[in-house]
Amino acid sequence: MELLILPLICGIISLIFLSILAKNITKEKVGNEKMKEIATAISEGAMAFLKKEYKYLSVFIIVLFIFMGIFLSIQAACAFLVGALFSMASGYVGMKTAVKANVRTANAAKTGIKEALGIAFSGGSVMGLCVVGLGIIGITILVYIFNFNIEYITGFGLGASSIALFARVGGGIYTKAADVGADLVGKVEAGIPEDDPRNPAVIADNVGDNVGDVAGMGADLFESYVGSIISAITLGSFVAVSIGNNALIYPLILSALGIISSLIGILIVKAYKGEKPQKALNNGTTVAGFLALILSSGACKYLFDSLTLFIPVVVGVIVGIAIGKITEIYTSSDYKFVKKIAKECETGAATNIIEGLAVGMKSTVVPIILIVIGIIISYIGCGGMKDSMIGLYSIALSAVGMLSTTAITIAVDAYGPVADNAGGIAEMSELPKEVREITDKLDSVGNTTAAIGKGFAIGSAALTALALFASYTQAVNLESINLLNPLTLVGVLIGGMLPFLFGALTMESVGKAAGEMVEEVRKQFREKPGILEGEEKPDYARCVEISTRAALKEMILPGVIAVLAPIIVGILLGAEALAGLIAGGVVTGVMLAIMMSNSGGAWDNAKKYIESGVYGGKGSDAHKACVVGDTVGDPFKDTSGPSMNILIKLMTIVSLVFAPLIVQFGGILFK
Amino acid sequence: MELLILPLICGIISLIFLSILAKNITKEKVGNEKMKEIATAISEGAMAFLKKEYKYLSVFIIVLFIFMGIFLSIQAACAFLVGALFSMASGYVGMKTAVKANVRTANAAKTGIKEALGIAFSGGSVMGLCVVGLGIIGITILVYIFNFNIEYITGFGLGASSIALFARVGGGIYTKAADVGADLVGKVEAGIPEDDPRNPAVIADNVGDNVGDVAGMGADLFESYVGSIISAITLGSFVAVSIGNNALIYPLILSALGIISSLIGILIVKAYKGEKPQKALNNGTTVAGFLALILSSGACKYLFDSLTLFIPVVVGVIVGIAIGKITEIYTSSDYKFVKKIAKECETGAATNIIEGLAVGMKSTVVPIILIVIGIIISYIGCGGMKDSMIGLYSIALSAVGMLSTTAITIAVDAYGPVADNAGGIAEMSELPKEVREITDKLDSVGNTTAAIGKGFAIGSAALTALALFASYTQAVNLESINLLNPLTLVGVLIGGMLPFLFGALTMESVGKAAGEMVEEVRKQFREKPGILEGEEKPDYARCVEISTRAALKEMILPGVIAVLAPIIVGILLGAEALAGLIAGGVVTGVMLAIMMSNSGGAWDNAKKYIESGVYGGKGSDAHKACVVGDTVGDPFKDTSGPSMNILIKLMTIVSLVFAPLIVQFGGILFK
Repeated sequence: MELLILPLICGIISLIFLSILAKNITKEKVGNEKMKEIATAISEGAMAFLKKEYKYLSVFIIVLFIFMGIFLSIQAACAFLVGALFSMASGYVGMKTAVKANVRTANAAKTGIKEALGIAFSGGSVMGLCVVGLGIIGITILVYIFNFNIEYITGFGLGASSIALFARVGGGIYTKAADVGADLVGKVEAGIPEDDPRNPAVIADNVGDNVGDVAGMGADLFESYVGSIISAITLGSFVAVSIGNNALIYPLILSALGIISSLIGILIVKAYKGEKPQKALNNGTTVAGFLALILSSGACKYLFDSLTLFIPVVVGVIVGIAIGKITEIYTSSDYKFVKKIAKECETGAATNIIEGLAVGMKSTVVPIILIVIGIIISYIGCGGMKDSMIGLYSIALSAVGMLSTTAITIAVDAYGPVADNAGGIAEMSELPKEVREITDKLDSVGNTTAAIGKGFAIGSAALTALALFASYTQAVNLESINLLNPLTLVGVLIGGMLPFLFGALTMESVGKAAGEMVEEVRKQFREKPGILEGEEKPDYARCVEISTRAALKEMILPGVIAVLAPIIVGILLGAEALAGLIAGGVVTGVMLAIMMSNSGGAWDNAKKYIESGVYGGKGSDAHKACVVGDTVGDPFKDTSGPSMNILIKLMTIVSLVFAPLIVQFGGILFK
Repeated sequence: MELLILPLICGIISLIFLSILAKNITKEKVGNEKMKEIATAISEGAMAFLKKEYKYLSVFIIVLFIFMGIFLSIQAACAFLVGALFSMASGYVGMKTAVKANVRTANAAKTGIKEALGIAFSGGSVMGLCVVGLGIIGITILVYIFNFNIEYITGFGLGASSIALFARVGGGIYTKAADVGADLVGKVEAGIPEDDPRNPAVIADNVGDNVGDVAGMGADLFESYVGSIISAITLGSFVAVSIGNNALIYPLILSALGIISSLIGILIVKAYKGEKPQKALNNGTTVAGFLALILSSGACKYLFDSLTLFIPVVVGVIVGIAIGKITEIYTSSDYKFVKKIAKECETGAATNIIEGLAVGMKSTVVPIILIVIGIIISYIGCGGMKDSMIGLYSIALSAVGMLSTTAITIAVDAYGPVADNAGGIAEMSELPKEVREITDKLDSVGNTTAAIGKGFAIGSAALTALALFASYTQAVNLESINLLNPLTLVGVLIGGMLPFLFGALTMESVGKAAGEMVEEVRKQFREKPGILEGEEKPDYARCVEISTRAALKEMILPGVIAVLAPIIVGILLGAEALAGLIAGGVVTGVMLAIMMSNSGGAWDNAKKYIESGVYGGKGSDAHKACVVGDTVGDPFKDTSGPSMNILIKLMTIVSLVFAPLIVQFGGILFK
C-alpha cells in the first residue's frame, strides 16, 4: 500500500509541471488585434461547444449514476462519476490550453520555427500531462479508498470510456462537418483558398480542430490510459494469490515510471535549440521510451524478484512501435501504397475509392499478426500455459507498458492540431507567407512521430479489450466461454454486427451535419453577396452554432447503443452470450478501426502527394478524383475509425461493471 | 438405406427433365446471320475461358487429391475429386445452355415477351436442375458407398467449395474487368452506347455475364446446396444414437422433396400463358415453396413420428425469405435507402460513396438479427438446451430447408443474365428497339424474385458455416472451445482478418484486370481510327483473351489463401485456435458479404433511379456522381461480396476435412 505514494507523487508532479507550462504559454504574446479577434472567436466557439456537450453529458452521467447506485453499489457509482468528471476535465484543460497556444504559436512563428515549436509543443505537453496526471491520481486514490476492490474501481473506467465515446463521436462529427462544409462550398464552389476569412465556416472549421483533435483525442487517450491500468489491476487481483499482492501495484508503478520518463523526454524536446524540430521530437520520444523500459525492469525485479513480468512490457512497447511503423507505411506517400492510390486517381474517383478501401482492408493483416504475436509471447512467456490467469494478466501488462509513456506520445500528437490552428490564424489574419510555411512545417513533422501514437492506440485497444474481456468472465464466474454453445455464437454475431452499425451511424451523422453546414454557407453567400468581395462580414457564429447543434444531436444514438447493447444482450441472453458479443465486437471493431483509419489516412496523403505536383497536380482530373477519396476518408479517419477503438473497450467495460446485474438477472429469455 | 432411392430418383428425374429442356432450347431458331455470328463469338469466348479455367483448376485438384490421398485417405480424396468434377460440370452445363438460350431469347423476343420468357426461363431451369440433380446424386451415391462415413463424404463438400471459390472469384474478376473496361472507355471516353458493336470489349463484356453470373453462380449455388446437406448429414451422424438413423437420411429426403416441388413450380412458370412474367415467376416460386413445406412436414412425421424437426425447416424458409425481403428494401429504388443514396449524388461522388457504404453497413443489422432468431428458435425448439447436438443438427436442417427449393430459385436467378445477354445480342445485331425493350423488361422482373435467392444465399451460408463449425469441433474431439484461451482468441483475430484480406485482394484484382482492359480498348481506338466510324472491325478476341488471362492469374492467390490459412493455423497453433479462426472468419465474412453485396446493389439501383430522370437524369452532375458509386459497387456486389459466402464455408470445410491431420500434428509450435 505504501508504494502507492509513487504514482500519486508522479501524478501530482505532472499536474504541477503542466501548470507551469500553461502559465508560460499564457505569458507569450498574442500578436496583433486581428489575430486576437480571430483567436477569441475560435476560443469562444470551442468553449461554447464544450459547455453544451458537457450539459448533455451531465444528463447521461446523472442517469447512469442513479442506475448504478440502485442496481450495483453507491461506491461503483461514485467511481464512475469521478472517472467521467476527470475525463471531462482532461478534455477541458487540453482544449483551454490549445486555444491559447494556437494564436501564440502563430505569433512566435514570425520569429522562427524554434520559437513556434516551443509554444506548440508546450500546448501538446499540457494535454499529455493532464491526461496521465488525472488518470493516475484518480486510480491511485480510488484503489486506496476501495482497497483494490475491483468491483468499484472499474466504475472509474466506465466513466472514462463513456465520456470518451461521446467526446470522440461528437468532436469527430463537429470537426468533419465544419471541414467538409467549409471545403465543399468555399474551396470547390466559391473558389476561395483554405482558411480564407471570407468563408463563413472558417471559424467553425478551426473550432472543429480543437473540439475534435484536441478535446476528443484527450478524452480518448484518457480512456485508453486508465482502461489499460484498470484492466491490469483487475487481472492482478486474480493472480495476487499466486504471485503476491505486488501484482496489484505493478501496473501503477509502471505508469508512474512512464510519467517520469515522459517528463524527461518533454524536457529534452523543450531544451532543443536547433532548427530541426523532427529531431527534437524523435530524441524526446526515444529517450522517454528507453528510460521507461530501464526503470520498468528495475521495478519488476524489485517487486517480483524476477524479470519474467518485464517481458510483456517490452513486448507491448515493441508491438506498439511496430504497428505505428506499419501504419506509416500504409498511409505515407513515401511508400508504395499511397503512391498506388494516387496513380489510380488518373483513371478517376471510382478506382481511387476501390484502391483506398483495398489498402485499408489489407492494412489489417500485419497489425493483427503483430498483436497475435504479442499475445502469444506475453501469455506463454509468463507461464500462461500453466496458469492462464497469469498469462492474461501479462497481456494486460503489455498494454500498460505500451501506454506508459502516453504523456509524451500525446504531447507529440496534440501539438499537430495546435500548429494547424496557428496556420489557420496566420492565414485569416493575413500574416506573411513565411509564417504559414513555418506552421505547415511544424504540422507535418509531427505526423511521423504521431503515427507511433496511432499504433499505440490500436494495439493497446485490442490488448486492453482482451484483458477486460478476461476480467468480465471472472466477474460473471464463467470458467470457460464455450463457442460451441449457440448462444455464444449468437452473441458473437450480434457483437460483430455492432461496429458496422456504429460505423454507419457515425458516417451518416457526419454527412447530415456537413449537409446542414453546406446549406448555411451557400445561404450566406447568396444572401450577402458582399462577403465574397470582402465587403461584408460573414456570420461565423451561425456556422459554429450549426456544427455544435448537429454534432451533439448526432452523438447521442451511437453512444447510447454502445452502452445499452451489452446490458440488453446480457439480460436477455445471459452472460455467455454477452461474452460472445464482446469477442465479436472486438474482432470486427479492431478490423474496422484499422481499415477506416488507414484508408482515410492514405487517401489524405494521396491527395497531398498529387497536390505536390504529380499526375498533373492541383486542378487536374487526378486531383479532382483524389479529393473525392479525401472527403470519404474524412469521416473514416477522424470520426468512425477512432471511435471504434473506444467502442470495443466501452462495450467490454460496461459488461464488466454490470457483471453483478448480469449474474443476477442474465438470460431471462431462457428462465 | 432403402430410402436413399428417393433422392436418387429425384436427382435422375431432374437430369432427364433438364435434357428435355435443353433439347427444346436448341430446337428454337437462332435468328439472322449477324445474330449467329455474335452469339458464336460470345459462346466461343465463354467456352475458351471455362476450358482455361478448368485447366488451371485441374492442377489444383490433382495436387490436393494427392495430398489428401497421402495424409487423409484415398476415399476422402476420391470424394473430393467427384465433388470438384460435379461442380465443374454444373458450371459447364449451365453456361453451355446459357450461351444457346441468349441468342434464341433475343430472336423469340421479336415475337413477344411470353415467347422470350419461355426460352430464357428454360435456360435458367437447366442450370437450376443441373445443380440440384448432380448435387443430390453425388451425395446419395457417396453416402451409399461409404455407408454414411462422414470422414469421406465431407471430401465431396471440399471439392464443391474449392471449385466454387475459384469459379466465383475468377468469373467475378472476368465479368467486372470486361464491364468496367467496356464502360470506362466506350461509354465515358468515346461516348458510344452500351453494347455497341464498335466497342472492342463488347464481346468480352457479354462473355463475362456468362462466366461470372452463370458459371460462377452455378458453382457457388452447387456448393451452398451440397454444403448444407453435408453439414446436416455430418451432424445427423452425431445425433443418430439418440434420435435414430433417420437423422442421416432426413436432409436428403428434404432436398429430394424440394426437387419435386421445384419441378412443379418450374412447370407452372412454363405453363403460364399471360403477359405478365412477374406473375408467372412469383406463382411458380410460391407454389414450390409451400409444396416443399407440406411434403417436408409429411416426411418429418413419417421419419421421426413427430413434427419437432420440421420446426427448423419452417424457420429456415421464413428467415431466408425475410432476409431476401430486407435485401430488397436496402437495395431497391422503391425504398428510402436507395433514394437517399441518389439524393446524396447531388452533392457529389464523395457523399454518394459515404452514404452507400453506410447503407451497406447498416444493412447487416436486420439479417443478423433474423439469423440469430433463426438459430435460437431452431436450437431451442428442437431441444438443444437438453442435448446440444440435436440443437446444432436442427440449425443445419434450417439451412437445408432454406435451400431445398434451390432448383427454382436458381432458375429465376439465372434467367436474368440470359435475358441480359439477349439484350446485348439484340443491340449488337441492330434488332428493332422493341426487342431490346422486351429483354430489358424480362431482366428487371426477375430482380425482385432474385432478391429472395440472395437472402437464401446469405442466410444459408451463415447457418451452414455454423453447422460445419460444430461438425469440425466434433471431428477434432473438442468438447468445448474456450474463448478464454488466448490461442482461441488469437485464432478469432486471424480469422476475422482473413475476409478483409480476401476482400482487398479480390477488389484489387478487378482493378488490375480492368486497367489492362482499359488500355487495350484505348489502344485499339488509337491504332484503328476506323473502328469508331464503323469502318474497321475491332479485335474482340484480343479483349476476351485479356480478360481470361487476367482473371485466371488473379484468382489464384485468394483461392490458395482460403485453402491454406486454416491448415497452417491448425498445424501451428492447434485445433482450438483453428476453431477460433473459423468463428472469427464467419463473423467478419458474413458482415462483409452482406455489406458489400448491399452497398453494391444499392449504388447500382441509385444509378438506375437517377437515369430514370430524377436529379437531372443522365448526363447531369448527379449522374456522374452516381456512376462513381456504381463502379465502386461492381467489384463489391459481383466479386468480393459473393465470394465471402463461399470463403467462410470453404475455410470451415477445409478444417473439417483436414481434422484428422490437425488432431495428429496440430499445435506444433507449443509441443
